[in-house]
Amino acid sequence: MEVERLRALLEAVAQGRLSVDDALSALRDLPYQNLEFARIDHHRPLRKGFPEVIFCQGKTPEQVAAIAVRLAERGRVLATRATEAHFEAVRARLPEAVYHPQARSITVGELPSAPEQPYGVVLSAGTADIPVAEEAALTARMMGVRVETRYDVGVAGLHRLLEHLPLLQGARAVVVVAGMEGALPSVVGGLVRCPVIAVPTSVGYGAHFGGLAPLLTMLNSCAPGVVVVNIDNGFGAGYCLGLIAQSEATTLP
Amino acid sequence: MEVERLRALLEAVAQGRLSVDDALSALRDLPYQNLEFARIDHHRPLRKGFPEVIFCQGKTPEQVAAIAVRLAERGRVLATRATEAHFEAVRARLPEAVYHPQARSITVGELPSAPEQPYGVVLSAGTADIPVAEEAALTARMMGVRVETRYDVGVAGLHRLLEHLPLLQGARAVVVVAGMEGALPSVVGGLVRCPVIAVPTSVGYGAHFGGLAPLLTMLNSCAPGVVVVNIDNGFGAGYCLGLIAQSEATTLP
Amino acid sequence: MEVERLRALLEAVAQGRLSVDDALSALRDLPYQNLEFARIDHHRPLRKGFPEVIFCQGKTPEQVAAIAVRLAERGRVLATRATEAHFEAVRARLPEAVYHPQARSITVGELPSAPEQPYGVVLSAGTADIPVAEEAALTARMMGVRVETRYDVGVAGLHRLLEHLPLLQGARAVVVVAGMEGALPSVVGGLVRCPVIAVPTSVGYGAHFGGLAPLLTMLNSCAPGVVVVNIDNGFGAGYCLGLIAQSEATTLP
Amino acid sequence: MEVERLRALLEAVAQGRLSVDDALSALRDLPYQNLEFARIDHHRPLRKGFPEVIFCQGKTPEQVAAIAVRLAERGRVLATRATEAHFEAVRARLPEAVYHPQARSITVGELPSAPEQPYGVVLSAGTADIPVAEEAALTARMMGVRVETRYDVGVAGLHRLLEHLPLLQGARAVVVVAGMEGALPSVVGGLVRCPVIAVPTSVGYGAHFGGLAPLLTMLNSCAPGVVVVNIDNGFGAGYCLGLIAQSEATTLP
Amino acid sequence: MEVERLRALLEAVAQGRLSVDDALSALRDLPYQNLEFARIDHHRPLRKGFPEVIFCQGKTPEQVAAIAVRLAERGRVLATRATEAHFEAVRARLPEAVYHPQARSITVGELPSAPEQPYGVVLSAGTADIPVAEEAALTARMMGVRVETRYDVGVAGLHRLLEHLPLLQGARAVVVVAGMEGALPSVVGGLVRCPVIAVPTSVGYGAHFGGLAPLLTMLNSCAPGVVVVNIDNGFGAGYCLGLIAQSEATTLP
Amino acid sequence: MEVERLRALLEAVAQGRLSVDDALSALRDLPYQNLEFARIDHHRPLRKGFPEVIFCQGKTPEQVAAIAVRLAERGRVLATRATEAHFEAVRARLPEAVYHPQARSITVGELPSAPEQPYGVVLSAGTADIPVAEEAALTARMMGVRVETRYDVGVAGLHRLLEHLPLLQGARAVVVVAGMEGALPSVVGGLVRCPVIAVPTSVGYGAHFGGLAPLLTMLNSCAPGVVVVNIDNGFGAGYCLGLIAQSEATTLP
Amino acid sequence: MEVERLRALLEAVAQGRLSVDDALSALRDLPYQNLEFARIDHHRPLRKGFPEVIFCQGKTPEQVAAIAVRLAERGRVLATRATEAHFEAVRARLPEAVYHPQARSITVGELPSAPEQPYGVVLSAGTADIPVAEEAALTARMMGVRVETRYDVGVAGLHRLLEHLPLLQGARAVVVVAGMEGALPSVVGGLVRCPVIAVPTSVGYGAHFGGLAPLLTMLNSCAPGVVVVNIDNGFGAGYCLGLIAQSEATTLP
Amino acid sequence: MEVERLRALLEAVAQGRLSVDDALSALRDLPYQNLEFARIDHHRPLRKGFPEVIFCQGKTPEQVAAIAVRLAERGRVLATRATEAHFEAVRARLPEAVYHPQARSITVGELPSAPEQPYGVVLSAGTADIPVAEEAALTARMMGVRVETRYDVGVAGLHRLLEHLPLLQGARAVVVVAGMEGALPSVVGGLVRCPVIAVPTSVGYGAHFGGLAPLLTMLNSCAPGVVVVNIDNGFGAGYCLGLIAQSEATTLP
Repeated sequence: MEVERLRALLEAVAQGRLSVDDALSALRDLPYQNLEFARIDHHRPLRKGFPEVIFCQGKTPEQVAAIAVRLAERGRVLATRATEAHFEAVRARLPEAVYHPQARSITVGELPSAPEQPYGVVLSAGTADIPVAEEAALTARMMGVRVETRYDVGVAGLHRLLEHLPLLQGARAVVVVAGMEGALPSVVGGLVRCPVIAVPTSVGYGAHFGGLAPLLTMLNSCAPGVVVVNIDNGFGAGYCLGLIAQSEATTLP
Repeated sequence: MEVERLRALLEAVAQGRLSVDDALSALRDLPYQNLEFARIDHHRPLRKGFPEVIFCQGKTPEQVAAIAVRLAERGRVLATRATEAHFEAVRARLPEAVYHPQARSITVGELPSAPEQPYGVVLSAGTADIPVAEEAALTARMMGVRVETRYDVGVAGLHRLLEHLPLLQGARAVVVVAGMEGALPSVVGGLVRCPVIAVPTSVGYGAHFGGLAPLLTMLNSCAPGVVVVNIDNGFGAGYCLGLIAQSEATTLP
Repeated sequence: MEVERLRALLEAVAQGRLSVDDALSALRDLPYQNLEFARIDHHRPLRKGFPEVIFCQGKTPEQVAAIAVRLAERGRVLATRATEAHFEAVRARLPEAVYHPQARSITVGELPSAPEQPYGVVLSAGTADIPVAEEAALTARMMGVRVETRYDVGVAGLHRLLEHLPLLQGARAVVVVAGMEGALPSVVGGLVRCPVIAVPTSVGYGAHFGGLAPLLTMLNSCAPGVVVVNIDNGFGAGYCLGLIAQSEATTLP
Repeated sequence: MEVERLRALLEAVAQGRLSVDDALSALRDLPYQNLEFARIDHHRPLRKGFPEVIFCQGKTPEQVAAIAVRLAERGRVLATRATEAHFEAVRARLPEAVYHPQARSITVGELPSAPEQPYGVVLSAGTADIPVAEEAALTARMMGVRVETRYDVGVAGLHRLLEHLPLLQGARAVVVVAGMEGALPSVVGGLVRCPVIAVPTSVGYGAHFGGLAPLLTMLNSCAPGVVVVNIDNGFGAGYCLGLIAQSEATTLP
Repeated sequence: MEVERLRALLEAVAQGRLSVDDALSALRDLPYQNLEFARIDHHRPLRKGFPEVIFCQGKTPEQVAAIAVRLAERGRVLATRATEAHFEAVRARLPEAVYHPQARSITVGELPSAPEQPYGVVLSAGTADIPVAEEAALTARMMGVRVETRYDVGVAGLHRLLEHLPLLQGARAVVVVAGMEGALPSVVGGLVRCPVIAVPTSVGYGAHFGGLAPLLTMLNSCAPGVVVVNIDNGFGAGYCLGLIAQSEATTLP
Repeated sequence: MEVERLRALLEAVAQGRLSVDDALSALRDLPYQNLEFARIDHHRPLRKGFPEVIFCQGKTPEQVAAIAVRLAERGRVLATRATEAHFEAVRARLPEAVYHPQARSITVGELPSAPEQPYGVVLSAGTADIPVAEEAALTARMMGVRVETRYDVGVAGLHRLLEHLPLLQGARAVVVVAGMEGALPSVVGGLVRCPVIAVPTSVGYGAHFGGLAPLLTMLNSCAPGVVVVNIDNGFGAGYCLGLIAQSEATTLP
Repeated sequence: MEVERLRALLEAVAQGRLSVDDALSALRDLPYQNLEFARIDHHRPLRKGFPEVIFCQGKTPEQVAAIAVRLAERGRVLATRATEAHFEAVRARLPEAVYHPQARSITVGELPSAPEQPYGVVLSAGTADIPVAEEAALTARMMGVRVETRYDVGVAGLHRLLEHLPLLQGARAVVVVAGMEGALPSVVGGLVRCPVIAVPTSVGYGAHFGGLAPLLTMLNSCAPGVVVVNIDNGFGAGYCLGLIAQSEATTLP
Repeated sequence: MEVERLRALLEAVAQGRLSVDDALSALRDLPYQNLEFARIDHHRPLRKGFPEVIFCQGKTPEQVAAIAVRLAERGRVLATRATEAHFEAVRARLPEAVYHPQARSITVGELPSAPEQPYGVVLSAGTADIPVAEEAALTARMMGVRVETRYDVGVAGLHRLLEHLPLLQGARAVVVVAGMEGALPSVVGGLVRCPVIAVPTSVGYGAHFGGLAPLLTMLNSCAPGVVVVNIDNGFGAGYCLGLIAQSEATTLP
C-alpha cells in the first residue's frame, strides 16, 4: 500500500533511521509511481474478476504465449483475435487454457460466476456477425456479468427481433452487432430504455467500404442512447457492457 | 409523322417527281431525325397524363416562367425545387398555376384522375423529410397514380410504422424517404413484397456528410427489393413509382 | 392458424371455460406471434414460384449445402456467389442441383415457365460485367419472368446499343450493369420509358475505387427513372426486376 | 388504457354481450396498438423525471413553441439547439421557460433533484467545445443525475487534467467533449475505470473535415471503455450518461 | 539572344577587354537567368496572339484592374471568373475592356482572327454547364482558334447529340463540359477520333459531392482519348484545346 | 457501301422494281446500320496504322489469344497489361507476336515507321513508374508517332529534368508519369508550351491511397495545359499523345 | 525548486518539527503540482521572448481582448486569425497593440531583436497564399528569429524560385506555403538540405477539397526532410521554424 | 571544382589557347551541370557522415544489391524496407553489410560516432509501432546523431510516458510514432518544447483506414510544434530529426 510505504518512509526519517538524502532519492520517482499507485489503489477493488487482455492480431504465437504466461500469474487472461496457432502456443505453456472458436478468443482461468441481475444482452443482425458478437459476450462474461445472446435478428425480419422484447427491456445494456447497413441498433434503441452499444462489422460488400456504411448508420442513429465503437470491435463493446453492468454490484454498497 | 414523310418521299421517287439524287440528299439526315421520331412514336402513347418537368434550382424566376409557358402548351407542367419567387413569376404568365409549398413545387394543369388500384405509398422517417416526400408524392400523382402518404414513422418508434402494415402490403411500390441513419427502407423492405424506392435526405448533422450516411445505409440494405435514388431526389423516386404503378394500366390491354 | 387460435380462445371465454384473467395473460404475447403470422398470411399467396435464396460468399460449402437441403423442402432454391466447391457440396446432397458458372449461382428445382409479356431486359456494358448481369437475369427468371440479355453494349460504341432499341422500348424494366465509368444507365434511361435498375460493378482500376465511380455516376443520372442498387449486386437488381414484372400477373385479377 | 380495453372486451364476450366474430374483428388491429401499449407500460415507470426533447435545428420558432406547449402538458421539456428566437417564441406561450445560452437549450419545468451518488462528469478539451459539453450536462441533469463539469482540460496541458483525477475516478461515467485532434478521451480512458462517452466536435479547421478527424481518433482509441456518439451530439452523450447513472436507483430495488 | 551575350562576353575576354575575374562574376548568375531567358526565347514566337490571363476569384476588383493594366501593355488580356464588379474596375482604367457575362470573363484587345481549319468544338451536357463551356470557348478563341459550341446535348437525349455528329467528327479536339453524372465525354469519345477534353462541373446535388461524381466518371471513361481537367476548369480545357489546334499552324512550316 | 445500297434501293423504287411499302420496310432498320456505317466510313481513313487494342487484365490467356487472332486479321494488335502467360498463349497462335516486358504489353505486327516531326516525349518521375511510361510510349509508337523517353527525372532533383529542356520544348505533347506526390507535371507544364498529359501512378504508400494523392495533385496543377488520365492509365495517355501528334500528318493535306 | 521544498519538508520531519501525518497530507498533492511545477521550471528559461498566443477564430472581440489583457501582463502577445474587429477591441484596452493585416494577426509588445544567423525562410507558391505565409513569418519573428520571405515562386515558373537558391541554401529551415497542387515543397526539398516545413492552404477549387489535394501532395513528397502541418496552419509552421532556429542560441551554452 | 574549371576555361580564352567557338560549345551544358555542381558544392560539407539511402520496397534483391554496391563506393549506405532476401543479395556482394531486423533495414559502413549533445528521442505508442520507430532511430544515427528510444508509452497509460519526462525535455527533437488513434504526439507536444515529428502508422483496424485516423489526429494536434510525415514513414521522420540535431554542430562555428 503506497500510503503505508510513504508513512513508513516518513517515520524512518522521523526516527532517524533514514537520512534526508536517502529519503529524497527514494521519493524521486514518486510522482509517476504514485500516479500508477493511485490508479492501482482506486482500481484494485474494482478489478476483481477482471481479466487481463491480449490483442493477438499481429502478434506471433510465441509472443502471445509469453505474455499470457506473465499475465496468468496475476489472474484470469483473455486473448482476443486469436487463431488456433495462438491457442496451441498458449496451451503448450498453460494447459488450462480454453479456446472459444466462435469468439476467436482464448481464456485462461474459469469464467467468474455472474449474478442474475443486472444482465446484458448481445444481439447480432446476421450469422456472419456472430464472431464479433461472441467476442463481446465473452468479454463481459469474463468481467462477471451474465450475458444473453440472440443472433440473426436483423431488421429485414422484425418479428424475429420482437420475439425477444421482454428480454431486451429487462437488460442493463444491449450490445448490437451489425454489418450490411447496420440498421439494427436504431430499431433496438427505439424499443428499450438502456444504453445500446452499437458495433459495426466489416461484413458486407460494394459500397460497404469495410464497415464504413454501418458505422455511419450507427453514428447517425435517430434513437437516443445509442453509442458506437470501432468496426469489428467486439471486445470494446463487451468491455463497456461489463463496466455498465458490473458497477452496480461493485460501486453501490 | 415521319413514316408519312418517308412514304411521301418514296412515292415521289416512284412517280418520278423526285430524282434519286435529291432523295438521297433528303435522306442524309434521316437517321437522327428518325431516331427522335422513333422515340416520340413509341413514347407518345405512354405519355398521356405525364407532366413536363422543370428543375428550378439554379434557374431564375424568369427562366422558369419562360420554360413553363412553352411546356404548358403541350400539357401539364411540374416544376420542382421551386421557391415562392419562382411561383410568382410563373403565375404572372400562367394564372392557373398552383404552388405546393410542402413539395416546393408548382403545377400547371389539374392533377389527372387516379384509379384506386394499383396505388403507391410514400413514407417519411421524420418530419424534416416531408418536403422530399411530398415532391415524390406529387410527381407520381401528376402521372395519374394514387399515392397514400404516411409521415414521421421512423424506426425509433416501430409501432408508428406497424400501424400501417396493411396499407403497405397492398401497395404496388413504396417510396421511403429518410435522413439521419436512413434505416427505414430496410425495415419496410422486410415487411412488404413490392419494390421499395429509398430516398436518402440531407437531413442530419455531424458524420451525416450531407446525406452520405443514409445513402450508404440504403445501398447496403439487407432487405432485397430496395433500390436507391440520389440524396433528396424526391422527384426521381416519385417518377419511378409512377412508372411502376402506371404501366399496368397502360401497357396491358 | 393464428385466427383459429384467437377464435378458440374467445369461444372458451364466451363459454366460460376460460377466465378473463387467463385470457388476458394468454393474449400478452399475441402481438409478436401475430405479426409473424400476419406476414406469412399476406405473403404466402405472393410467394408462388419465388425461390429461397442463399448468399454463399463467406459460407463454407457444408453450411451452404445444409441450408439448401432445408430450403429445398419448401420449393425452388437459388444460391448466389457460389463457387464450384459450394456446388459440389450441394450436389452431393441434392443431385438435381444445377450450376450456372457465368452467374456463379446454383439452382435447385426447374426454372418456372415465364409468360411472353411482360418481359425484362438485362444489359451489360462490358464483357467483364457479365457475371453480375447473369446473376440478375437468373434471379428474375427464378421468379417466373422472361428475361432477354444483351451484353457488351457500352457507350463507347453507341450503335451496338441502338440496335436493340425496339427490344428495350418494349420491356417492363431494364437492368443495366456497368463498371468503368458506369455511363450506360443514363443513356438507356434516355431511350426507354420504364424503370432502369442500374448496377455498378467493381470492374475497373485506378480512380474507380472498387465501384464507387460508377455508383456515383448512376446516382447522379440526369435521366429520370434510373434507380440504383449496391455495387455488384446483381441479385438485388434481378429481384427488383422480378417484383416489377411479376406483379402484373399476380396482383391483377 | 389498453389492458382495460382488452379486459372490457373479454368480459363482454364472457357475458355474451359481444359475439366471438365481433370480438375477433375488434382484435384485428390489436398487435400494433398493443405494441405501443407495451412500450408505454414498460417505459412509464422508467420515465419519471425524464424530459421530452425537441431538436430545434431546422424548426421555426413557432413550430418549436407549438411542440413545447403540447409536451409541457406531460412533464418537463428540453429543447436543444435552440436560438434566442426559439426561446422568445416558447416563453411567449410558456412563461416559466428558461434559456441556457451556453447549452443553447431551453428547459420547461425545474431540474429534478439529483442524489450525490452516482454522479457523472463532463469534460471539454477546449473552450470552444463548451456549448456541446453544456448540452450534455444539461441533458443528464434533466434526467435527475448530478453532473460535474471541468472545461479546457485538453491534452496539451496534462496537469490541468490530472488535477481532477480523484473526481474522475469516482464518477459513474465520464463524457469527454473534444474537437481539434480529439485525443482527450483516450487519455481519460486510461485514467478511469468507468465508461467514457466521447463526443467529437466540429471545432477545428483544415484537415479536420468538420469533426471527422476527432471522430476517427475516438473510434480508434487504444483505451478500452471508450464509446462514441456523433459529431457535436452533446444531447446523445448526456442522454447515455443519464441512462447509465440513473438506472442504479431505478432498476435496483 | 543568350548565345550572343555569351559569345560577346567570351570575345571580350579573348580580346583582353574583360578580366577573367569579371567574366567569372558575370557568369555566376548565368544558370538561372539563362533558364528564364531560354523560356522567353522559345516561347515568344509561340505566343503571338496568346492572351495573358488573370484568375479573378479571390482577388479584389482593384487588384484585378492593376494587373490588367500592366498586362495590357504586353498584349491581349483574358480575366476569368470575373464579376461585374471586377469588370467595372477594369473598364475604369481600360475603356476598351469587354465583359462576357456567360463566360464570366473580361477581355482586353480584340479576339484574334481564326482560320477555318483546324477548329475545335465545345459541348455542354446541360444549360447550367454553359458558363464553364463559354469560358473554355472564349479561352481558345483568344488563342486564335475557331470554336463551335453546341449546348444542352446531354446523354438523356442522344438524338440531340447525334445531330451534330459531322461537326464533331471534323474537329481537331472536342471539349465536353458536363455536371450531373458526367457521362457525355464517354459517349462523345466513342463517336469521334480526336482528343476529348472532359470538364466536370460542380452542377448537381446530393451524392454529386461538388463535382466529384462526374470527375470520377470521366477519369474512368471506357472511351480512349478522353483526358480530364479539374472541376469547373473551363479555362484549362480551352487552353489545352487552343494548344492542340493552334500548333498546327504555328509549329509546322 | 451504304450510300450505294440506298441509291440502289431508290433506283429500284424509281424504276418500279420495288414497291413503296417494301422500300419503307427495308428502310426501317436504316438508322442504326447507317450509324454504324457512318462511323466506319469516317473512321476508316483515320485508322491506318492504328492498332486494335486488348486490355488483358481480368482476361484468361485463352481469351486474349482468341481475340488477338481475330484482330490480327485486320491489322496490328496491341495487348496491354499482359503477363508472360498471356504472351505464351498468344505466341502459340501468332508466332510473330512480340512481348515488351517493361511495357507489360504484346504487339502483333511491326511498329509503323514514324516521321521525325512532330514527336512526343514520355517522362517518368521515378524508376517504379517506368512500366506505365513504357505502356504510354509503346501505344503512341504503334500509332506511328516518334516517342522519346526520359526516366527518373523527378522534382527532387531538378537538374536531371532541366538537362532535357530543349527536347521537351520541341515536343508536340509530353506525357508525364509520376507516383508519390505527382508534382512533376506541374513543373513540366511551366517549362513547355504544348499539352502535358499527366498520368498518376499507384506507386507510393501511406496517405497515397493507391494513386489518389498524385491524381489530385495533377488535377489541381497551377500550370495551364496539363490534362489528366486515370491512375496507371499509360495506354490512355499514349493514345491521346498519338492522337495529337498523328493528326497533323493525317488531317492536314 | 521542488527538490528544495521536498528536502525542507523531510528535514522538518527529521527534526521533529513536522508530524508524519502532516507530512503525508502535504505530500498528497505532490505529483500533480509537481508536474505542473516541473513544466514551468523546465520551460521558463526557454520561454524568454516567446509570445503567448490567442487563436481568435470563433472568439468574440471581447473574449480576445480580455485574454489579451491577461496575457500581456506576462509578456508579448500574438493573436492569430484576427479580424479588424478583434483588433479594435484589443486596442481599446491595449493601445500599444499593432495589427498586421496581411498576417491577419495582432501583436502586443515589440518584436524581439533577431540575430543574423541562423535565419529562416518563408516561401509562398501564389499570392493568395500570402496571408498564411505572413502568419508563419510573424510567429517565428515573435520568437526572436530572423525570417526572410519570398512570395509567388510557384513551380509553374521555376526560374522565379531558382533565383533565390543561395538564400534558401543558407537557411536553418524553410517554410513552404502552397495551395493548388502543393508541389513547391518537393521542389524546395530537392534544392536545400535543411528541414522543409510544408503548409498546404485551402486556396484552390474543384478537386482541391479545401486543401486536401496539396496536403496529400506534401505528405507524399519524394524529397526527404519535408514535414507537414495542417491546412492553413501558418502559425504551426512558424512556431516549428522558431523552435528549430531559436534553439541553437538558447540550448547550447 | 566547377569554379576552377570555369576560370581555367576563361583563362584559356584570354590566353588564346581556346577559341571562342570551342568555349561556347564547352559552356553549352554549363547551366545544369552548374546547378548540380552548386548543389554538390553547398551540400558536400553538410553531407559528411550522411548515408546514401535505398528504398527497397518494390525493388528486387538484385536491384538493391546493384545500387548498394555503387553507393558504397561513395560512403555509408542505408537501405530501408528491406527483407531478409534483400539482405542476402547485398551481403553476397558487400560482406560488411549488417541487417537490422527490427528496423527492417540494411546498413553498410559503421554508424558514425555521435556526440552526447544534442540528442533526439524516438517514442512509440505501441509495440507494433516499433519497426517504424527503429527505422527512424537508425536513420538519424546514420547521420551521426545520438538517439534514445522509449517504446510502448501510449496515452492509455500516462505514467509510462511521464517517467521519461526529463529525457524528453532535454531533447533537441522528438519523433513520436503511433498507430491506433495517434494521440501520443499531442500529449508529448504539451510536455516538451522542441519540435515533435509525428509519424502515423498503419497499425489499427476498422475505421483506422490504413493510418488515415492517426494521420488526421496528428495534423489537427492542438499542441504547437507538432509536424507530421507520411504514414509509416519512419525514414522521413528520422531524417528530419537528423537534420535538426545535426546542424548545430555543422552550421555553427
